[in-house]
Amino acid sequence: MVAAPCLTLLTDFGLQDIYVGVMKGAIAKIAPNLPIIDLTHAIPPQDLPAARFSLMSAYPYFPMGTVHVAVVDPGVGSDRRAIAVSLPDGNPPGIVVTPDNGLISGVLLQQSPEAIASMRVVELTRSNYWRVPAVSATFHGRDIFAPVAAHLAIGTPLEWVGEPVAPQTLVQLPIEAASLKADGLHGAVQYIDRFGNGVTTVAAEALVGTSLADADDDWMVRLQTAQGSYSIPLAKTYSDVEPGSALALVGSQGWLEIAINQGSAATQLALAIGDRIVVRQKRH
Amino acid sequence: MVAAPCLTLLTDFGLQDIYVGVMKGAIAKIAPNLPIIDLTHAIPPQDLPAARFSLMSAYPYFPMGTVHVAVVDPGVGSDRRAIAVSLPDGNPPGIVVTPDNGLISGVLLQQSPEAIASMRVVELTRSNYWRVPAVSATFHGRDIFAPVAAHLAIGTPLEWVGEPVAPQTLVQLPIEAASLKADGLHGAVQYIDRFGNGVTTVAAEALVGTSLADADDDWMVRLQTAQGSYSIPLAKTYSDVEPGSALALVGSQGWLEIAINQGSAATQLALAIGDRIVVRQKRH
Amino acid sequence: MVAAPCLTLLTDFGLQDIYVGVMKGAIAKIAPNLPIIDLTHAIPPQDLPAARFSLMSAYPYFPMGTVHVAVVDPGVGSDRRAIAVSLPDGNPPGIVVTPDNGLISGVLLQQSPEAIASMRVVELTRSNYWRVPAVSATFHGRDIFAPVAAHLAIGTPLEWVGEPVAPQTLVQLPIEAASLKADGLHGAVQYIDRFGNGVTTVAAEALVGTSLADADDDWMVRLQTAQGSYSIPLAKTYSDVEPGSALALVGSQGWLEIAINQGSAATQLALAIGDRIVVRQKRH
Repeated sequence: MVAAPCLTLLTDFGLQDIYVGVMKGAIAKIAPNLPIIDLTHAIPPQDLPAARFSLMSAYPYFPMGTVHVAVVDPGVGSDRRAIAVSLPDGNPPGIVVTPDNGLISGVLLQQSPEAIASMRVVELTRSNYWRVPAVSATFHGRDIFAPVAAHLAIGTPLEWVGEPVAPQTLVQLPIEAASLKADGLHGAVQYIDRFGNGVTTVAAEALVGTSLADADDDWMVRLQTAQGSYSIPLAKTYSDVEPGSALALVGSQGWLEIAINQGSAATQLALAIGDRIVVRQKRH
Repeated sequence: MVAAPCLTLLTDFGLQDIYVGVMKGAIAKIAPNLPIIDLTHAIPPQDLPAARFSLMSAYPYFPMGTVHVAVVDPGVGSDRRAIAVSLPDGNPPGIVVTPDNGLISGVLLQQSPEAIASMRVVELTRSNYWRVPAVSATFHGRDIFAPVAAHLAIGTPLEWVGEPVAPQTLVQLPIEAASLKADGLHGAVQYIDRFGNGVTTVAAEALVGTSLADADDDWMVRLQTAQGSYSIPLAKTYSDVEPGSALALVGSQGWLEIAINQGSAATQLALAIGDRIVVRQKRH
Repeated sequence: MVAAPCLTLLTDFGLQDIYVGVMKGAIAKIAPNLPIIDLTHAIPPQDLPAARFSLMSAYPYFPMGTVHVAVVDPGVGSDRRAIAVSLPDGNPPGIVVTPDNGLISGVLLQQSPEAIASMRVVELTRSNYWRVPAVSATFHGRDIFAPVAAHLAIGTPLEWVGEPVAPQTLVQLPIEAASLKADGLHGAVQYIDRFGNGVTTVAAEALVGTSLADADDDWMVRLQTAQGSYSIPLAKTYSDVEPGSALALVGSQGWLEIAINQGSAATQLALAIGDRIVVRQKRH
């Protein structure tokens, strides 16, 4: 029974209401003094792709044994499963407590099939670890996910909180992967952050594989948005281009990003999720 | 002298400025390592009804002995009293530190007259528990409420921080209760949350009392908004209706709520605080 | 090797994305159980003057030995220095970890030249205190500032994390000081807070020096905004004027502020950063 170093929260509950606060109250009742770290609560309501991207991007930066509670839950009250997943050893191991609706599928994409097969997954069926006296039909974050996660964080074995589930049966949320075609590496914008940077589906590793990684002048990114089409230089850092100019660079989360130096690509290029990019050689 | 398990903050200070951060600094100076949990800082400026609703809804979910600091304070600098209230045993006992302007009156509504009579209340008059060297005329959250709460959290007796006050003299913030009339149970929207759900003044217990609790097909909710009038089915959970459809259900905080499955009632029905509802039988 | 009581974060990362959360994960890996307090993450993107004002205003309220991480970093990826500064004894001593771009210059303004000369400053050059395996070109908050600050918080000596730098060489971000002229004390709005209050560059001490401190009826503030020009009474507290009326008072951070009792000066007077004020006698 080893206690978790901390617990993270990722929800679409926002910070306007008391929902996040009462989840923390429910945790503090079971696991006093457990550090709680907010990943974000500003996932757009019920936006599973954004939640999936955020959890996938964040969890590698946490200590071993961290318990992650991720609740974006359009199916609350339906028969979707509630699960706890013990992450494999490749990345920092830890536990994710979440509805089984694809939210965790980004994390799983980064694992080998062998690692996934070795994961321990349970469906949260043991109501003695839930909030008493009653579980609301609409707020499983407070009544099920938070209490179960707090019990896991103080060392309750995973198998005590529910029935085993085969990891291969977890719901997947498909995301279109980048693909190499004759005219270049095709991808799309999968997330837009607060600065207006567009995170694409092109991973840094894919650029290495196609020898684009040295960001030389011979390569560029073709971007198509509702506003127009743009030729954008590959760069290593923001200051490689003038303030106000667009660039494509490998961002801090390991994906090719479309950005404006000291500006917002979302605003200035009318960037939107789903916009297509092609990484290609300039025409000679 | 028992230390509190945690301290909560509820304000209208927002997260844009450093006001909340410096309150936490003032607390950390007195009570290092005390866990601090944000209920919300997004109460609309000086909106006492929203603050009252939020504190009333949140405090039952916290551990025994929690100290709650709630500061929405239109009267800062006037002669309104600053108070600390030791909550009675019926719900988890704890302490609320707040201006005496009705913010706590929602919590008191949920207590019996006997419980209220037994509460210990003090007016914060002992400036040796305030911030030194000086107290600002405009930021009592940092200079009075936070330091006093931190002292209480480390075990300072309530009676040390101020003079006793009769609990019956606390300012009440009236809220129109739901009422049973010939044509049904009348209520109103008292809060709209981040998802656009409208929390009404009709409590789950009132539905039980009028035999409406089983949500059978024979009962519905009549809602009047600026946009129009709506007949909305009583439901047990979101998935009882199609995505995009309106429903009325008992929400996670124990009140009848108006919602749209996977949508926003505030947006789609033009729901606003004060909109009237009637829970009634369908016409045959 | 003394551990810090807590660590604060001030950034322009917002709370929409996971950036702040992963900084906290990086800190928790090095300094588990270190309390982390958010000053604000809502600095407008790359707005150094707002960040400078916020850090300067907040740090005096924290315990001795607090480590402040302040990252608003338009020059990330350029050759701007990353620094750690050990604050002098005059205010609560502590450490600021930040890019050397003027963000800390407000804190320095409040120190005597002697105090500044005695400060210990290092440039963060020792990559063994950074995140492994790799440092991103765009997210030094997570990869350099947070890990170095966490090491400092657990007692690593300042000199271990980098090379000494002369404090006099730190980048200054100039701010126009208030000035006394023939017709009164001239200043400008330097910050607008969530309530729509305009914080001016006129310090409380300046009012004392010019005998304006007693806020008698003979003195007023002349304000010029894009919308018009206003004569505003000097007051001691909000309730000195009617709800809805403008007033000028010494705010909680020690500056003369333009406010509306129970309203927003930003909205009602069209107040904007840079708007000019003159504190002067009424014409007889």
